[in-house]
Amino acid sequence: MRWAEGFIAVDWGTTNRRGYRLAADGRLADEIEDERGILAVPPGGFPEAVERLTERLGELPLLMAGMIGSNRGWAEAPYVHCPAGLAELSERLCWIEPGRIAIVPGVSFANGTGADVMRGEEVQILGAVAEGLIPADATVCHPGTHNKWIRLEGGRIVRFRTVMTGELFNLLKEHSILADLLDQPADLGPAFEAGVRHGLAKDDLTAELFSVRARVLLGKAPRAEAASYTSGLLIGSDARIGLRGAGDGEIVVVGRPELTRLFAAALAVAGRPARELDGEEAFLCGARRLAELMR
Amino acid sequence: MRWAEGFIAVDWGTTNRRGYRLAADGRLADEIEDERGILAVPPGGFPEAVERLTERLGELPLLMAGMIGSNRGWAEAPYVHCPAGLAELSERLCWIEPGRIAIVPGVSFANGTGADVMRGEEVQILGAVAEGLIPADATVCHPGTHNKWIRLEGGRIVRFRTVMTGELFNLLKEHSILADLLDQPADLGPAFEAGVRHGLAKDDLTAELFSVRARVLLGKAPRAEAASYTSGLLIGSDARIGLRGAGDGEIVVVGRPELTRLFAAALAVAGRPARELDGEEAFLCGARRLAELMR
Repeated sequence: MRWAEGFIAVDWGTTNRRGYRLAADGRLADEIEDERGILAVPPGGFPEAVERLTERLGELPLLMAGMIGSNRGWAEAPYVHCPAGLAELSERLCWIEPGRIAIVPGVSFANGTGADVMRGEEVQILGAVAEGLIPADATVCHPGTHNKWIRLEGGRIVRFRTVMTGELFNLLKEHSILADLLDQPADLGPAFEAGVRHGLAKDDLTAELFSVRARVLLGKAPRAEAASYTSGLLIGSDARIGLRGAGDGEIVVVGRPELTRLFAAALAVAGRPARELDGEEAFLCGARRLAELMR
Repeated sequence: MRWAEGFIAVDWGTTNRRGYRLAADGRLADEIEDERGILAVPPGGFPEAVERLTERLGELPLLMAGMIGSNRGWAEAPYVHCPAGLAELSERLCWIEPGRIAIVPGVSFANGTGADVMRGEEVQILGAVAEGLIPADATVCHPGTHNKWIRLEGGRIVRFRTVMTGELFNLLKEHSILADLLDQPADLGPAFEAGVRHGLAKDDLTAELFSVRARVLLGKAPRAEAASYTSGLLIGSDARIGLRGAGDGEIVVVGRPELTRLFAAALAVAGRPARELDGEEAFLCGARRLAELMR
């Protein structure tokens, strides 16, 4: 019954971490966000990192999701295979300390030679479904370092595909020949939309990326628009892949608002209705539901 | 007439440099290769870097090509627009010191919103054409950091497209979530061919790259094959883009032998006849022809 008295929920990613204290009535009582992602924690350092966290947020039961359950995290929580709903996640929690500290398993999909995995998004998506914020049958887009296109049927994740859009944009921005062109804000507007249109219509991403640079060198496109065009190009290519087999309905775009607005805009260019949902809100829905299932 | 008495030719790239002394009879008399690419030379350091080079190779006229002519190199040599042949390059040499030190201009292509640039490959390709090693009408593939698909007509470059395959593979290997999987040799074999087949047939590169990792995590593919599969996937995607509008004939693959063999193998999977040509040999052909045009 301890979970009914409140608990700590942590969305623990590769480079960032968000921790929340949820009160007995489910209300959000406190929260922190920092850059103590799993890569910032030395091997064997998770017990201490968690102790610091609970000193800050409160000595309560702890529910963690995300890359903390990967082979680079605290303990490897085996994947739940699709179809996966909240009940399956709850049954397969990885208990670090029985009854007190749990890691939510990730979800895997395999079909022929196809294979995919997620860690963290499942809590958000299935929580939002349980809360009625996403229909039980829907296509969800979850942008992030690795964007996920997720198909829900009967309230469970039945299949999904990951596109490396966010990581590729970061690689190009940090380390590539495009780095100096991408070192400026990418935002909505005509350049972004032109990139989206190219990405949706043409399957030549790895060539078009170089054209971004060539156009600037030859004076055919302004340097200031390169980042927005490239962002649109990558997101348009992503949507071209993700919209296949996505049915006709509204796409629910879940995640950080600064990313969901870009993907929603790209879907509008593609003529698909899209609705944005804050991933943080969705995560809290999922954490509360999982805690309820432990009572 | 000084060029008739022998000269130094330098293929000066971003991260590497190859210098050659060519004797009066055109024979290769000496050569060096090092990692003094343009990024290793401090601003204003090119005169001294060249002095060191000529101390080593001989005090002779100097012909340089590649990124040395870019805005990060010694002096920016304006591009020659397509169609571009050896005569156009020769007429538009960028003279650092009249009659003694020249940089070969790069080549640019523009068509509607399309734009592309090359620096260095043009000397190899047009030199090989002049030498009869490549037909005057042909499609050439030039792998490297930035792979070029080049269309030749009447012995001149009439259009070309760059695909960022080599750079993307390096980014993924050095900095991405696939880094630990790609930290092993990529080579020909069934995994490479499976990657090529996927890349040729499907336009979902940015998603399939993540599947490489997921398959290993889920035990559906051996870790040892990930690098070869990924290499094949990127090269197959590249060939899918490059073969469009490439006509039916043999593709001549020009470049470093360790790369041309991978692209030739991918073209064989695509059912296209391909012939390999050593880029170093081709560069020397081009340098000799350009020196002859100066006599």
